[in-house]
Amino acid sequence: MNFRKDKVVLDTSLFVNPEVRHDFGKTPTEALHGFLEIADQIPSLEFYMPSSIFQELLNFVDEKRIPGRFLAVLNQKSPSKHELTCPAYLLYELVEDMRDRINKGLRIAEKAVRSVGKADGIAADEREVIQGMRKNYRDALREGILDSKEDVDLILLAKELDALLVTVDYGAIKWAEKLGVRWLLPNKFKDYLLSFTAQESEEPAEEPSPKTTSS
Amino acid sequence: MNFRKDKVVLDTSLFVNPEVRHDFGKTPTEALHGFLEIADQIPSLEFYMPSSIFQELLNFVDEKRIPGRFLAVLNQKSPSKHELTCPAYLLYELVEDMRDRINKGLRIAEKAVRSVGKADGIAADEREVIQGMRKNYRDALREGILDSKEDVDLILLAKELDALLVTVDYGAIKWAEKLGVRWLLPNKFKDYLLSFTAQESEEPAEEPSPKTTSS
Repeated sequence: MNFRKDKVVLDTSLFVNPEVRHDFGKTPTEALHGFLEIADQIPSLEFYMPSSIFQELLNFVDEKRIPGRFLAVLNQKSPSKHELTCPAYLLYELVEDMRDRINKGLRIAEKAVRSVGKADGIAADEREVIQGMRKNYRDALREGILDSKEDVDLILLAKELDALLVTVDYGAIKWAEKLGVRWLLPNKFKDYLLSFTAQESEEPAEEPSPKTTSS
Repeated sequence: MNFRKDKVVLDTSLFVNPEVRHDFGKTPTEALHGFLEIADQIPSLEFYMPSSIFQELLNFVDEKRIPGRFLAVLNQKSPSKHELTCPAYLLYELVEDMRDRINKGLRIAEKAVRSVGKADGIAADEREVIQGMRKNYRDALREGILDSKEDVDLILLAKELDALLVTVDYGAIKWAEKLGVRWLLPNKFKDYLLSFTAQESEEPAEEPSPKTTSS
């Protein structure tokens, strides 16, 4: 091989999210087999999943139907969180981001209280209001934000490995960009993989590595 | 001087918080003068305040009555936020901390909706409920957490300078402990300062620096 081994970090969405997994299979377990079939033909790529994310995946797949080969192709690895460092200014971004969302959450709560408390007798149903509020609150506070340790695992592992991150989580994508991590949406991932199988089935290329005119 | 110059990072609370500033003066402006009078006698201590915190302080003091000497004694400096790094595991702590609080906030909001929506006619007053909810929500989501960029400035500046952090902000204290930053509550700060003035008015000590038996 004269290719550098490139690394890819996968989120569960590739196998679990119905909108993206159909490229690989109808059910999560089938998607996992579908992925394995292609991935196994690409020796130039190494695949990783944070252990925490793999634990999530186990909730969706039939554990007995996970092939041993899958565990060999998809490496489970947590980021070296006690050795890795991040620029301190990211703390500011996280804190400010959270602050905005906390204020948003409060406004959603106020709106809910007002809609129940309507004095004119046409107050909304309490249970419905609470359900609606929960949804709005969670959406406002979690969307586009780094909101779980699994998300942090994803971006830090990709950073540590200098890997391509494949995820639909907008919060993780936003942070991938802050940290200079490459990312790809899962709906383009099958094409991405197939471009490697096409390449690898050709004769090993012997062209010299590209040189730019600047030094 | 055979003492190492030690550094101290100050929060506004020392001058602004009525419960702690009385050691130095009745009003914020007087507290500032009271502090300066003592601090100016301690050449072995250097005092710092993040610029963002100093801006907050200006909201409480009579700007015209700030002595030029105060600006010479209390250095305004932001942390070098683009050069400093922090261990990546702190991102997990911040994210998990926020997640707990977001859930707490939602429970507070649900309680408020229920108290307004009481079907038996003895529903609480909507305006009162909203006011109470705002307070509970802010308390739950902000107390003991790093919740503003000013807080981040405080802990990072103290870390950068290897300084003693003087603050009542429990969130900043918690993070000072995570980062190995020394801290002191402002109500002990006058005694701390006076211990230096007592020492510095004595003959310069010539005792050797303490040696431990381990190497």
